[in-house]
Amino acid sequence: MTDVITKRETDYSQWYLDVVKNAKLAEHSPVRGCMVIRPNGFALWENMKDELDRMFKETGHVNAYFPIFIPESFLSKEADHVEGFAKECAIVTHSRLRVKDDKSGVEPDPDSKLEENLIVRPTSETIIWDTYRTWIQSWRDLPILINQWANVVRWEMRTRLFLRTMEFLWQEGHTAHASAEEAIAETEKILDIYAHFAEHFMAMPVVKGVKTESEKFAGAEKTYCIEALMQDGKALQAGTSHFLGQNFAKAFNVQFQNKSNALEYVWATSWGVSTRLIGGLIMTHSDDQGLVLPPRIAPTQVVIVPITGKDNAAEVIERAEAITRDLKLAGISVKLDASDQRPGWKFNEYEVQGVPIRLALGGRDLQNGTIELARRDLRSKTSVPQENLTQTILDTLEDIQQNLFDRAKNFRDSMITAVDTWDEFLHVLDTKGGFISAHWDGTAETEALIKEETKATIRCIPLDQQPESGTDPRSGKPSSGRVLFARAY
Amino acid sequence: MTDVITKRETDYSQWYLDVVKNAKLAEHSPVRGCMVIRPNGFALWENMKDELDRMFKETGHVNAYFPIFIPESFLSKEADHVEGFAKECAIVTHSRLRVKDDKSGVEPDPDSKLEENLIVRPTSETIIWDTYRTWIQSWRDLPILINQWANVVRWEMRTRLFLRTMEFLWQEGHTAHASAEEAIAETEKILDIYAHFAEHFMAMPVVKGVKTESEKFAGAEKTYCIEALMQDGKALQAGTSHFLGQNFAKAFNVQFQNKSNALEYVWATSWGVSTRLIGGLIMTHSDDQGLVLPPRIAPTQVVIVPITGKDNAAEVIERAEAITRDLKLAGISVKLDASDQRPGWKFNEYEVQGVPIRLALGGRDLQNGTIELARRDLRSKTSVPQENLTQTILDTLEDIQQNLFDRAKNFRDSMITAVDTWDEFLHVLDTKGGFISAHWDGTAETEALIKEETKATIRCIPLDQQPESGTDPRSGKPSSGRVLFARAY
Repeated sequence: MTDVITKRETDYSQWYLDVVKNAKLAEHSPVRGCMVIRPNGFALWENMKDELDRMFKETGHVNAYFPIFIPESFLSKEADHVEGFAKECAIVTHSRLRVKDDKSGVEPDPDSKLEENLIVRPTSETIIWDTYRTWIQSWRDLPILINQWANVVRWEMRTRLFLRTMEFLWQEGHTAHASAEEAIAETEKILDIYAHFAEHFMAMPVVKGVKTESEKFAGAEKTYCIEALMQDGKALQAGTSHFLGQNFAKAFNVQFQNKSNALEYVWATSWGVSTRLIGGLIMTHSDDQGLVLPPRIAPTQVVIVPITGKDNAAEVIERAEAITRDLKLAGISVKLDASDQRPGWKFNEYEVQGVPIRLALGGRDLQNGTIELARRDLRSKTSVPQENLTQTILDTLEDIQQNLFDRAKNFRDSMITAVDTWDEFLHVLDTKGGFISAHWDGTAETEALIKEETKATIRCIPLDQQPESGTDPRSGKPSSGRVLFARAY
Repeated sequence: MTDVITKRETDYSQWYLDVVKNAKLAEHSPVRGCMVIRPNGFALWENMKDELDRMFKETGHVNAYFPIFIPESFLSKEADHVEGFAKECAIVTHSRLRVKDDKSGVEPDPDSKLEENLIVRPTSETIIWDTYRTWIQSWRDLPILINQWANVVRWEMRTRLFLRTMEFLWQEGHTAHASAEEAIAETEKILDIYAHFAEHFMAMPVVKGVKTESEKFAGAEKTYCIEALMQDGKALQAGTSHFLGQNFAKAFNVQFQNKSNALEYVWATSWGVSTRLIGGLIMTHSDDQGLVLPPRIAPTQVVIVPITGKDNAAEVIERAEAITRDLKLAGISVKLDASDQRPGWKFNEYEVQGVPIRLALGGRDLQNGTIELARRDLRSKTSVPQENLTQTILDTLEDIQQNLFDRAKNFRDSMITAVDTWDEFLHVLDTKGGFISAHWDGTAETEALIKEETKATIRCIPLDQQPESGTDPRSGKPSSGRVLFARAY
C-alpha cells in the first residue's frame, strides 16, 4: 500500500517528494546527491529520449560518444568555462586501491597517483572541440551535427530528485558550422524542437526566450532557453540552446579553410535537456492523488482491471484479454492487471502512478456490453460501450493530452503578471508568484540587486518581446521592453 | 579519400585498427585508454542496443539507472569482488578545482577532499545490492528483473579500440530471485538471448559454455559465457551471464521472508555485453577492403549511387529517388548519395564502411529498366531488373545475412581442433590457432601452467560437452571431458 501523499497546499516540496516516492520514480542513493532512477521513472525518460532522438535525427543530427573524463588542463582553456564549472566537479586523482595496513578497508594506492588529474565531465564542450580539431580541415567537413546521450556530474551541494542532482542524464548536442548565421539558425532550430517537445509531448507550455548576460552559459555568446512554470508559481528552466560563437574554436584552435581558401575559426553551438524535465513534468500536471501523465509520454497509457466474482472469473479475464489485444493492435500501450490484489488496491496504485486511463470490467459489464472508463486527469468515471472501444480510447487519450496542455497553459497564462512599480513587483512576487513581466534597464547591476533582494531572477527576454518604452521599477532608469522575472528551481 | 588498409595476412592488428579508422568507427581520445565512438560506430551500437533491449523487455526485464559512483567502502564488502576490481579503478578524491598560485592552471582544492572516496563504477553489483536491500522484504517483492545501459570504467593498461578500453558502454542486468533454481534459469535464459543475438543479428557464431573457477567473474558462483572466434584464430569472450548465488545478498544483508515466513538471503544474477561486441563484429566478417556488416545490424543497408551524364542527370536522380522511396516503404534502411563526389570515390567509401548492398543507376539502366547491384559480402556485381526490385533487395539482404553467418560458422567449425597429446596441442596452437578441444584434469594448477607456458586459456566448458574418459595432455591425469582452449583477446 502506498503512503499518504502530503497535500500541495500543505507543503509543496514535501508533496513533490511524496509523488516521486509513491509513484516509484526515483530515490536517493547512498552516494550523496546521486539518485537511483527506478523503473517507472526510467520508462518516462526512455519515452522522452525516443521522441527527442527521433526529432534530432529527422533534422540531420547523428549520435556519437565522447569520453566521460576530461583532462584537468582542458578546463582552464576557455576562461569563462573554467569559472563556470571548476567550482563543482568530481576529480579523479588515483587509479588503484590497496588494502589498508590495518586491514580495515581500502584506500588509494599512492603509487597510482595520476600525472594529470581527470575531471568527470560536467559538460563536454572541451573534449569535443579538442577532437573536432582533428576532424575539421575545410568547409567540406562542415557542418558537424553531433548529439550525445550521456551522464554528467556537477558537484551540487543542495540537491532535489530530478531537479538538481550531482549526476544526471542528458543529451548534449555539439555542432560546428562555417558561419555565424548557420550556427545561430541551428541554435534556434533546436530551441524550436525543445519547445515543440515540451508542449506537444509533455503538455508543458513554455516561453521561448534569451538569457541575460549574467544568466547565460559559461562560454556562450548567447543562450536561448525554454522556461516553464510550476504549479507553485516557481519557474523551471527546461532546456537551453547556446550559440557559442568562436569561443571554443579559439580555445582549442579549430580552424577551417573557407571557400575563399582563407583560414577561419569554426562557429559552434551546444544544447541540452536532462532528466530535470521529469521534475518539470511532475510539477506541471500532478495532483494530491499522485502522478498525472500526458498520454504521449506515459509508459502505460491504459490499465485494465478485471473485477471478478466466483462464477465469472474466467469469462471476465477472457474478455479483458481480448480488449487488451485490440488496444495493443491499435498501438496503445496497455497493461492488464489480473494479479490477486484487491481492485481497490489496484485503482489506488495506478492512480498514484498516473496512468491516463483505467478500465474496469465486471460481470454486469459482460451482460451489458459496457466497461467503466476512468480518466486520471479529471478523476471522472463513465460507463462506455465495448463496441468501438478502441476508437473511444484513442479519442480519450487525445482529449486527455489536449486537456492537460490547456489546463497547464491557462494556469501559466494566468500567472504572468505585468507590473510597473516596485511595490507591485514585491507584492505579486510574495502573494501570487509566477512570471512577472516588468521593464528592466538592461544592466547587470539592477538584475543582481533584484536577485539579492528578492531571489527573483530574469528567466528570459522572451523572443516575442514587444518594443515598449518604460521604466525599470527597481532602478527608475529607462527600459525598451519587458522581461520575465520569477523565483526559480 | 580513405587511407590504404593493411592486409590481414601482413599484420592483423594493424588491419583491425585500419578498418576501425577508415570506416570511421572510433578513435583514441586525449584521455589515455578512452575512445571516441564516432557516428558510424555509434549507429552500430544503437542498432545492437535496440535489438537487445527489445529482447530483454520481451522477457520481462525493465530498465533503471543507478549512480556512476560507488562509495569506496562498498568495494571491500564482497571479498572476491574487491580482489577482482580494486586493482583497476578511477578514484574520485576531491570535489573542487582552484587556480594554482602561479596561475599556470588548476589543481584540486585541498579543502574539497572527500570524507569517503568514490569509485567510478567498474560494474554495479555493490551499489545495486545495497539498494535492493530497501526494496526487498518478502517473496512478493521478487523477482526483480532490472537492466541498466551505462558507461563503466576499468583502469586497463593495454587498450585496443572497442576490445579493451578504460571506459566502455554496456548493459548490466541485475536480477534478484527467491530461489537458486529460478536464478540459474534466469542466467541461462540470458545466455540464450546473447547467443541468439550474436548468431541471428551479428551473424557471429558462438559457443555457449561455462567458465572455469579461475576464469569466472569476481563474486560469482558460476559464470556462463558465449565465446566467438576471430579470423586470426583468437577467441573473444562476447558476453557473460553470472549466477551469483547469495554472495551479494550476504555482503549487503538482503533477506526476504519466504512463503513459509522464514528469512532467507536473496539469490542473484548479473549479466552483460558491451561495445566490445563491435570489435567482435569487425573481426568476424570484415576483409582487406574494410568493414563488412550483416544487414540486420547495418545502419545503412542499401546505398544508391546515381551515375549521371550531362544529359540525363535529372532523369537518373528522379528514378533513384523513386527507388529510394520504394525501398524505405519496405522498411529498408537506404541512403541515396547524390553528392558531387565521383562515383568511384563513393563506391570505395561505402565498401570501406561495409554497406551490404550498393546500387548504381546510370543512363543505360534507365533505357533497359535495370540497375547494378553490388554485394559487399561477395564483392560481386550483377545487373538486375528494376521490376520487383524491392523484393530482390529484401531477398538479397536475407541471403547476405545467411551467407555471412554460414561463412563464419564454417570457418569457426574448421578451427575447432581436437588434440590428445601435448605436442599436438602446442603444434596446433602455434600453427593453426583457433579452439583446441582437449581433455583437462579439472585442476586450477594445470590450467595455470598451460596459461603460463602458452598464453592459451580455457575459454569455456561447452554446455554440450560430451562425457568422455581421457587424459589431460599436459598433466597426464585423468579427465572426464573436453574443454575449449584458445589464445584470446
